[in-house]
Amino acid sequence: MVLDKIQRPNDVKELKEQELPILADEIRQFIIDKVSDNGGHLASNLGVVELTIALHRCLNFPQDKLIWDVGHQSYTHKILTGRKNGFDSLRKYHGMSGFPKRDESNCDAFDTGHSSTSLSAGLGMVCARELKKEKYKVVSVIGDGSLTGGLAFEALNNAASLKSNYIMILNDNHMSISENVGGLSHYLAGVRTAKGYTNFKKNVKASLSKMNAIGEELERNIRRAKSMLKQVFIPGMFFEDMGITYLGPIDGHNIEALTEVIEDAKQVEGAVLIHVITEKGKGYEPAQLHPESYHGVGPFIKKNGMAKKPKEEATYTDIFAKTICELAQTHEKLVTITAAMMDGCGLKGFAKRFPDRFFDVGIAEEHAVTFACGLAAGGFHPFFAVYSSFLQRGYDQILHDMCMQNLPVTLMLDRAGLVGNDGETHQGVFDLSYLTMIPNMTVFAPKNRYEFQDAIAFAADFEAPMAIRYPKTDAVRVLKEYREPIKLGKSEWIRRGSRVALLAIGTMVETAMEVEELLAKDGIDATVVNLRFAKPLDYEMLDEVLDYHSLIVTMEENVLSGGVGEHICRYVEMHSTGVRVIACGIPDKFIHQGSIKELLEETGLDAQSIYQKISTML
Amino acid sequence: MVLDKIQRPNDVKELKEQELPILADEIRQFIIDKVSDNGGHLASNLGVVELTIALHRCLNFPQDKLIWDVGHQSYTHKILTGRKNGFDSLRKYHGMSGFPKRDESNCDAFDTGHSSTSLSAGLGMVCARELKKEKYKVVSVIGDGSLTGGLAFEALNNAASLKSNYIMILNDNHMSISENVGGLSHYLAGVRTAKGYTNFKKNVKASLSKMNAIGEELERNIRRAKSMLKQVFIPGMFFEDMGITYLGPIDGHNIEALTEVIEDAKQVEGAVLIHVITEKGKGYEPAQLHPESYHGVGPFIKKNGMAKKPKEEATYTDIFAKTICELAQTHEKLVTITAAMMDGCGLKGFAKRFPDRFFDVGIAEEHAVTFACGLAAGGFHPFFAVYSSFLQRGYDQILHDMCMQNLPVTLMLDRAGLVGNDGETHQGVFDLSYLTMIPNMTVFAPKNRYEFQDAIAFAADFEAPMAIRYPKTDAVRVLKEYREPIKLGKSEWIRRGSRVALLAIGTMVETAMEVEELLAKDGIDATVVNLRFAKPLDYEMLDEVLDYHSLIVTMEENVLSGGVGEHICRYVEMHSTGVRVIACGIPDKFIHQGSIKELLEETGLDAQSIYQKISTML
Repeated sequence: MVLDKIQRPNDVKELKEQELPILADEIRQFIIDKVSDNGGHLASNLGVVELTIALHRCLNFPQDKLIWDVGHQSYTHKILTGRKNGFDSLRKYHGMSGFPKRDESNCDAFDTGHSSTSLSAGLGMVCARELKKEKYKVVSVIGDGSLTGGLAFEALNNAASLKSNYIMILNDNHMSISENVGGLSHYLAGVRTAKGYTNFKKNVKASLSKMNAIGEELERNIRRAKSMLKQVFIPGMFFEDMGITYLGPIDGHNIEALTEVIEDAKQVEGAVLIHVITEKGKGYEPAQLHPESYHGVGPFIKKNGMAKKPKEEATYTDIFAKTICELAQTHEKLVTITAAMMDGCGLKGFAKRFPDRFFDVGIAEEHAVTFACGLAAGGFHPFFAVYSSFLQRGYDQILHDMCMQNLPVTLMLDRAGLVGNDGETHQGVFDLSYLTMIPNMTVFAPKNRYEFQDAIAFAADFEAPMAIRYPKTDAVRVLKEYREPIKLGKSEWIRRGSRVALLAIGTMVETAMEVEELLAKDGIDATVVNLRFAKPLDYEMLDEVLDYHSLIVTMEENVLSGGVGEHICRYVEMHSTGVRVIACGIPDKFIHQGSIKELLEETGLDAQSIYQKISTML
Repeated sequence: MVLDKIQRPNDVKELKEQELPILADEIRQFIIDKVSDNGGHLASNLGVVELTIALHRCLNFPQDKLIWDVGHQSYTHKILTGRKNGFDSLRKYHGMSGFPKRDESNCDAFDTGHSSTSLSAGLGMVCARELKKEKYKVVSVIGDGSLTGGLAFEALNNAASLKSNYIMILNDNHMSISENVGGLSHYLAGVRTAKGYTNFKKNVKASLSKMNAIGEELERNIRRAKSMLKQVFIPGMFFEDMGITYLGPIDGHNIEALTEVIEDAKQVEGAVLIHVITEKGKGYEPAQLHPESYHGVGPFIKKNGMAKKPKEEATYTDIFAKTICELAQTHEKLVTITAAMMDGCGLKGFAKRFPDRFFDVGIAEEHAVTFACGLAAGGFHPFFAVYSSFLQRGYDQILHDMCMQNLPVTLMLDRAGLVGNDGETHQGVFDLSYLTMIPNMTVFAPKNRYEFQDAIAFAADFEAPMAIRYPKTDAVRVLKEYREPIKLGKSEWIRRGSRVALLAIGTMVETAMEVEELLAKDGIDATVVNLRFAKPLDYEMLDEVLDYHSLIVTMEENVLSGGVGEHICRYVEMHSTGVRVIACGIPDKFIHQGSIKELLEETGLDAQSIYQKISTML
C-alpha cells in the first residue's frame, strides 16, 4: 500500500508522481471504510483528496499554515499528517475530532467548525508573518457555499490590500447552495465553463478577433455582451475587480494540474485565489449521486450506502417538517427561511409544497434574520429554521432588527443542547442565555413531540419575536398524557409535591421525572414543573413553589451563565428567604465530542448526578 | 421660504423644478442650524439632501418603502415627511430620534442604527410585496462604508435572483473607510472615474476602437488590460457579475440627473443598483474639510464649527488612546484593530505612530474578531477597539474563534453602558451578559481612569481572551486613592462595613459610594466592593461578604438578564441561606434616547433609586 508510506507530516513529498493517484484511491477507500464504520463527514472529504495531496506536495508542515474552512473536509489532511490511526476513535468521546484542532496536531493551524472563518484567520496569519518578517506560506481552503457568508466577503475585501503572498483556494463543488440562490453562485457557474487559466494567454489573440464580431451586437444588447465578454475573456473578474489575482478554473481531481497552479500561486505578491472545481462524494457512487445525504452520516453499509441502523423514530426535525406544512395551509402569512440547510432543518417538504413561500438565503445567518424582519415588516410571519450554534451568527440581528422592532419572526433552533459527536463548535448550549437577555423575546423549549407541535402552532399565531429550541435527538413521547394548552409565559405542573421542586425545561423534563423517582425512593415527594418558557418566566408558578418548598432545582441543557437557573435565582433572591436553589446546567467550559449520554454525565446533567447534588444539599 | 411649503409627506412633489435647488439650500441651512444648536449627525445628513429630494419626487409615501442604512442620514427624509418641528427635540429624552423609527412615522419603513442591514430588510420587503402581489416600490440607501459589511454582501448575493424591481442606492461618499483598506473601496475608486451611464451607449463604439489599440498590449500585460477594459468599458461589472443591474456613476448633488436615473431604475425587472457620488458635509465648509470630525457632533458655533462646550476632561477613549501607545513601545507583539472607527475608538495616534501594527478592516466586526484570532495564532496580541453595541455583531466569532481556541485577544468595548442620545440601537448594555456566558473569557470594567490604565496594561500581559468595557463619558478621577494592583479575578475592597454590601462594577462604583453615604445617614455602615472583574468573579470576596452581611446589592450598567447580579445570585443560592440579594441593572426593555443621567434615573440606576430599594428591603 502506498498509504503505508505515509507516517509523518511531509512523507507524501517522498512519493513518486505516479504513486499519487494510487495514494488518492487508497485514501478514498480508507475514508469510506472508516466513515461507514463510525459515521462522519463523507461527501466533503471525498471531494478534496487530490487537492489535499497537492497542497501537501507544495507546502511544508508545520511551518506553513493551512486553514480548512468549516473543517469537515480535513480527513485527508489528518491522514497525511500522521493521524491515520486516530480514525478508529473519530468523533468519539476523547477520540480524534472530525474537525481541525490545534491541540491535536501542530499541522492544524486554526480550529474551525462554523463556516466562512478561514479567510479572516488566514489574513491575520499573513499579517503576523509580515510583521515578524517570516517566510512561511498561508493557505485557506474555502467552499463555494462558505464564500457566500458575509464574514468571508469582509475578509476578501481586506485581502485585496495585501502586498505579500496569501493563497485562497476556492473549493467549488457546486453543491453547498441551491443554484438559484445567489449571485455569486450564478457567477461561478459562468466561470466554471470558462477556459482554464493555463490556456489563457494563448486565447487572448483569438478572443480579440471574437470581440470584433461581438461588436456589432453590442449596441443592441449591452448586457448580454458584458456577460459574453466576461466569460470569453476574463474569468474571475469578480475577484480581480476586488484586487485579488484569480487563477482558474482548475480540475480539482488532477494532482499534476493542482500542483502546478499552487506553485504558480506561491509566486504571487499579494492575495491570490485558485478556483478549483471538485466533486463532492467523488469515488463513492451513493455519495456522488446524493452528496447532501452523505454530508454528515452515521455508520452505513458500504455496498449500498444504506444506514446500518435505519431510523425508527421521528426526530424533532421531522416533527417540525410535518407540522410547519400543516400550519402553512391555514396560515397564509407563514413563510420559511433556511440558511443553506434545507435538508438538515426539515424544510425540504415545505419547499416542495410551497415554493413561493420558502427562501434559502445561502450560508448567511445574519442576513437570514434581517431578511426575515423585512418580510415581517411587509406583513408576513417568517419561521427561520437554523442550528442553535449557527444562530450565534445572528445575535445582533435578532437584537437590533427583530426584537427592537418587535417583529413577528419565529426562530426554530434545531440541534439545541448537547449535539454529541460534532463537538464543541456545534454544541447548542448558549441559546437560552443569548436569547433570554434580549427584550421582547419569547423563548420556549418542549418536553416532547406533542408539546413541540403545540408550540409551533402557538408561534404561528404569536405576533412577536419567539424562539423554540429543540434537540437533535428523537422526538420523545414521554409524558404524553401531559398536554395542557400552551399559554404565554405559563409553565405546566407535572407533579405537585413538597419540599423539593424540580423546575426543568425541554429535554430536562424527562430527566426531572427520573430524579423524582430516585428521590421518591428516599421518601422525598418532589414537585416537578415543566417550565416550557425560558422567557417570560412563570412568576405565578414560582410564587407558589416558593410557598411550599425549601429547595428548588433548576434543570436546563444550557450554560449556567445567563440561563434559566440564574434568572430563577434572581427572582428567588428578591422574593424569599430560606429557599435554596441548585442550578443544574452546563458548566463554564467548552464541551468536547462524545455521545450525548456521555456528555450529559460529564456535565452532571444525568439524573443520577442531579439526584446526588440534591441529596448532598438535603 | 420654499421649505415652508413642505408640511406633509409628498408635498415636495408639488414644487416646481426650479424650486428644488432652493429647497436643498434651505434644508441644508435648517440642518446646520438645528445640529449646531442641539448636536447630531451633520456630515452624513448634508451629503444626501439632493438625493433625498430626488427620492421623494420619485416615490409615494407611505406606500413606497425607503430604508436608510445606519439611518444617520435621514434628517432630510424626516423634514420632507412632516417632522420639521421635531428637530427642536432631536435626540433628546422623549424627543425625535436621530434615526428612522417606524413608530415615529409611517414613512419610516424600517428602524436602523447599526450598519449594513438595509439591503436584507429591503429584500425581505420586496419578497413580501411579490407574495402579496402588491405594487409599491422598495428602495434601500446604503453607504460605501456599510457595503463592506458582510451582512450587506449576503443580501447583495441574494438580491441577484430577484425577478422584480428592487432599487439599491449606493451612496458613495468615499469617506466611510480608509482608501487602502478594502478591495471594494479600491474598485469603487476606479468606477467613480468612469463615464456616467447616460453616456454609456454613445461610448460603446468609440470604446471598441480603443479595444483594438489595447489589444497589442494585452499579451504583455494582461492584468493591466483587464483593469483598463473594465474602466473604459464596463463600470459596475462587480455588481453585474453578481446579476445586479448597475446604473452609474451619478452626481449625487444633481437633482435632475438623480430623478432621471431613479425613474429609469424603477423600470428594471430585478435588482438594480444606482451608484451615486456624494460629498459628506456638502455645503458646510468645516464639515466638508473634516467630515470625520462632523460625523456625530455636540452643539457648535455655526460661524467657525468650533464646539460650544470645549472638552475639558479626557474621556475613557482618550485615556485608551494614550495608554495603548505607551504600552506598544514595550510590548512588541501588541497590535490594534478598528472596524472603520479609528477616530471614535481612539486609535488615530496609534495608527500614526505604529502604522504597521494598526489595522482598519472597514465596517466588519465579525471579520475584525476572527482576523484578530489569526494574528494571535500568528504570535501577536491584538487589541480590537469597538463600540459595545457594534461588537454584538462579533458574538459568534468571539465564542467560536477567540474563546474556543483561548487566544490572547483583548476586546476594548468603548461606549459600554448607557450612551445617551443615540438611543436604543447604540446602548452598550448587553456586553456583560453576552461576554460572561462564554467559557475562557475574562471581563473587566474600571471604576476610574487610573484603574482603566492599569487594566489595559494588565490585558497586554494577559495571554487569554479578555474584554474591558468602559463608558462614553469623561474618565472620572473618583476614588483615585484606591489603586490596588490588578490581579486576575480579584475585586477591590473600598470600604468594609457590615449588614449591607454594595458590590458594584465599572461606573456603578461611584454610584455605590453615593448610596453608601445615603445609607450612612440612616446609620447603616455599608460595605463597598469594586468588583473589577465581571468574570471570573471573586469568590473569596463573596464568601467573606456572605459571612458578615445579610443583604447584598449588586450594581451594574448592564441588563439584569445574564449580568453580574444574576451570577452572584446563583453563587449566593448555592452557598448560603438567609442572605438576600438586590440585583440592580437595566430592566428587560430597550432603553430609548436621553441624557445618560435621565436614563439612569429611568432605569433606577441612580443612587437615590438604589438607596430606596435598599431601604424598602431593610
